[in-house]
Amino acid sequence: MIEQLQAIVGAANVLTGADRARWAKEWTGYFPSDPIAVVRPGSIAEVAAIVLLANDTGTPVVPVSGNTGLAGGAQANGAIALSLDRMNRIRDVRADARIAIVEAGVVLSDLHKAVEDRGLIFPLTFGARGSAMIGGVLSTNAGGSNVLRYGNTRDLVLGVEAVLPNGEVANLMSELHKDNSGYNLKHLLIGAEGTLGIITGAVLKLMPKPRAYATAMVAVPGLDQALELLNRLQEATGGAVEAFEYMPRNYVEAHLRLSPDNRPPFDAMHDINIMVEVGATAPRDSEPGPDGRVPVVAHLEQTLADMFEKGLLLDAVVAQNEAQRQAMWQRREAAAEIVLGAGRPVSNNDIAVPLDKVAEFLDRMGTRLAALDPGAEPILVAHLGDGNVHYAVWLSREDAPLKDAVTEAVEDEVLRLGGSFSAEHGIGQWKLSSMARRKDKVALAAMRAIKRALDPNGIMNPGKVLPPAN
Amino acid sequence: MIEQLQAIVGAANVLTGADRARWAKEWTGYFPSDPIAVVRPGSIAEVAAIVLLANDTGTPVVPVSGNTGLAGGAQANGAIALSLDRMNRIRDVRADARIAIVEAGVVLSDLHKAVEDRGLIFPLTFGARGSAMIGGVLSTNAGGSNVLRYGNTRDLVLGVEAVLPNGEVANLMSELHKDNSGYNLKHLLIGAEGTLGIITGAVLKLMPKPRAYATAMVAVPGLDQALELLNRLQEATGGAVEAFEYMPRNYVEAHLRLSPDNRPPFDAMHDINIMVEVGATAPRDSEPGPDGRVPVVAHLEQTLADMFEKGLLLDAVVAQNEAQRQAMWQRREAAAEIVLGAGRPVSNNDIAVPLDKVAEFLDRMGTRLAALDPGAEPILVAHLGDGNVHYAVWLSREDAPLKDAVTEAVEDEVLRLGGSFSAEHGIGQWKLSSMARRKDKVALAAMRAIKRALDPNGIMNPGKVLPPAN
Repeated sequence: MIEQLQAIVGAANVLTGADRARWAKEWTGYFPSDPIAVVRPGSIAEVAAIVLLANDTGTPVVPVSGNTGLAGGAQANGAIALSLDRMNRIRDVRADARIAIVEAGVVLSDLHKAVEDRGLIFPLTFGARGSAMIGGVLSTNAGGSNVLRYGNTRDLVLGVEAVLPNGEVANLMSELHKDNSGYNLKHLLIGAEGTLGIITGAVLKLMPKPRAYATAMVAVPGLDQALELLNRLQEATGGAVEAFEYMPRNYVEAHLRLSPDNRPPFDAMHDINIMVEVGATAPRDSEPGPDGRVPVVAHLEQTLADMFEKGLLLDAVVAQNEAQRQAMWQRREAAAEIVLGAGRPVSNNDIAVPLDKVAEFLDRMGTRLAALDPGAEPILVAHLGDGNVHYAVWLSREDAPLKDAVTEAVEDEVLRLGGSFSAEHGIGQWKLSSMARRKDKVALAAMRAIKRALDPNGIMNPGKVLPPAN
Repeated sequence: MIEQLQAIVGAANVLTGADRARWAKEWTGYFPSDPIAVVRPGSIAEVAAIVLLANDTGTPVVPVSGNTGLAGGAQANGAIALSLDRMNRIRDVRADARIAIVEAGVVLSDLHKAVEDRGLIFPLTFGARGSAMIGGVLSTNAGGSNVLRYGNTRDLVLGVEAVLPNGEVANLMSELHKDNSGYNLKHLLIGAEGTLGIITGAVLKLMPKPRAYATAMVAVPGLDQALELLNRLQEATGGAVEAFEYMPRNYVEAHLRLSPDNRPPFDAMHDINIMVEVGATAPRDSEPGPDGRVPVVAHLEQTLADMFEKGLLLDAVVAQNEAQRQAMWQRREAAAEIVLGAGRPVSNNDIAVPLDKVAEFLDRMGTRLAALDPGAEPILVAHLGDGNVHYAVWLSREDAPLKDAVTEAVEDEVLRLGGSFSAEHGIGQWKLSSMARRKDKVALAAMRAIKRALDPNGIMNPGKVLPPAN
């Protein structure tokens, strides 16, 4: 097997033993990887040849790109770990057509940089953008902080190319916004976490870079007031709110413990802290007026002042320059380090509920948590504008049945409120039991039928996404 | 069979013989339908029972809703025509959450009316909206004139429920913007034209209704100037252009012949006529200023005046009231009647190319058409902002090989320019040969595998979308 792999990609690109170290440890620590070998193809043809070999020999293949997933989707025990990191070319950026054509190994932040000086953005962003690669971003349908305005990954993809489990290359690299030609395989591959094929390239939508941002930290007395702020801003700006993030007091405090040279958001500590950002693309909103003020910033300040006067806000700080804005973002993006870096046992739950139900969800979970583990402490952060709560809980002890009980309680409450047990982090292995317990049974059976049809030998990232049928 | 169907839905809802007339003729005239019976279920349970019976007996089932498709997807010869017209309830409109929960038989324009007085829109719109139903809209991933701003149907759907070919009901009625829980069956069912299951209901996104529109007819010397107008308006408004439609001179003339009491768009006739509409949602763009003028309208007028001064426009008329705006839309939406109502042999081609390639496409087709049929006359209309051209051709004679040759020429040129041979009307039966000739072979094989996996007995709308394997 190793020799055959070497014949395909060259000996230097088949890593075994200690050479696999970079891929073996992944940073959550829950899913260390022990592959037969890490294979680093340099072209689609090489990916296809590896998959063909795997299919012929019944060897599992696990695609890996940035390895920043939180759900164990890239763990490759006993499998070929197929790393896409060498396929990192940005093939083309066409500013007029507002598209980028990229390979799967392009790092998300490299793409951000490559389009920025063209006055464009690829709007998807999240904390791991400096390591996450496009292949994983698409395979997990990643979300992040700008979904409110720009949608999830799948909303930003025009075309894909992928190596299917039989080793054949499907070319679906459309550059068009209208293309109805049979079943939408693009959307089937996006979010399939590499279980139906390996995405090797994509055509991505670019957006005009906002010419100005207005960013603020806001303290409110309750989540109702937060939603009023969101609705007022959306209505006044025609839907230009880019981010609307909720951080409770203990999150802010944990952030200060983690990096003590950071400053707190306000002079006093508050229970409900919101980071809001509005983007302005039209010149009439982004160009400084006769008084030298940028309209979108002035407008945010006015909205906050109006609400403060009515007692709907407790405090607010508007970023006065890019450094202040970045400090606000840095606090929000430290979430994974804050939650996992404290060295405490964690129950991690990535869920979504209708956004007017977030408060009810948190209330009810408070009660249920107290019954399950009186020493537990929720350490959450939320994309409040999407109703997406990263409901992590620091538990009083490392205890698998307790963790499962917390997850069950979370899912009970989420589904009661019309929510989803999996919002943006994906299923991987982490949520297999949730899929088995909570996913619509008919849908699950259909997914299994599709998996069998496209991957009859079960070689593509086996044991992920779909729980075993009983 | 008839008795068993009557047992499920009641005798009054199983139509045979002449009672099928309303479903037998469809208005293109190309695909008259001769079903065993038209069955009109009143609930999901009845749909499921019908499909189960069909699957057990190997009887084809063809879902029909508004029957306004242009591709023969609803022709039901020798099949059960399952009409969703009785399932026409709008189950809920939740203005705060900006969603509508509807059954498949809801007529598109009824949904428009139901949400309008809540200050919301379901933005998808096209000429047949008074007959087209949501089930068909989703099954064909319909497009239309507002895709430029709001996306295709699939971009406006949060959840679906569907009866799969085995008669089981898949409940995917998510109301959430983030929901990553396994393969995306929603996007697989949308655009599958009823070949993988019958969509019975959906959760749809609603958008804030623009508070003001600025609408104009513009005559330009060339398509380059049209694109410059589009780009200027998009940049100035932050992407608020709702429609950007191209009608050539012979289209305008044909419209005047069709309904002689209409007025021409300009005093003189021009070769390139553009209908543009900008929507304003933010108060600062939509509320009349101190001078009584609506900013978005004033802004459009200023842009047009600037371009006119530079010789980039030949003429422009801005709608001064809703009646003038509706007259502009009526001209555009008469397309199907103009093309098909002239009684001339037609080659109809719904294609898309990158929008800066439309002029090249039209030039090259002019040359090729002259060689194929010197008496041919293109009678096109285009969603220019999407690069989507409805490239119809009036031929000099009814001649199947000539039609096929024209289609082949169109597809040659489209694919050479990186376009799609099927933009928004779907495949149905009309484009089966195009699918066989032009679709990526690996993708086509994967589609066939999915079809076999979900519909092993081949009962769901057989003979549509997927060409027979050779």
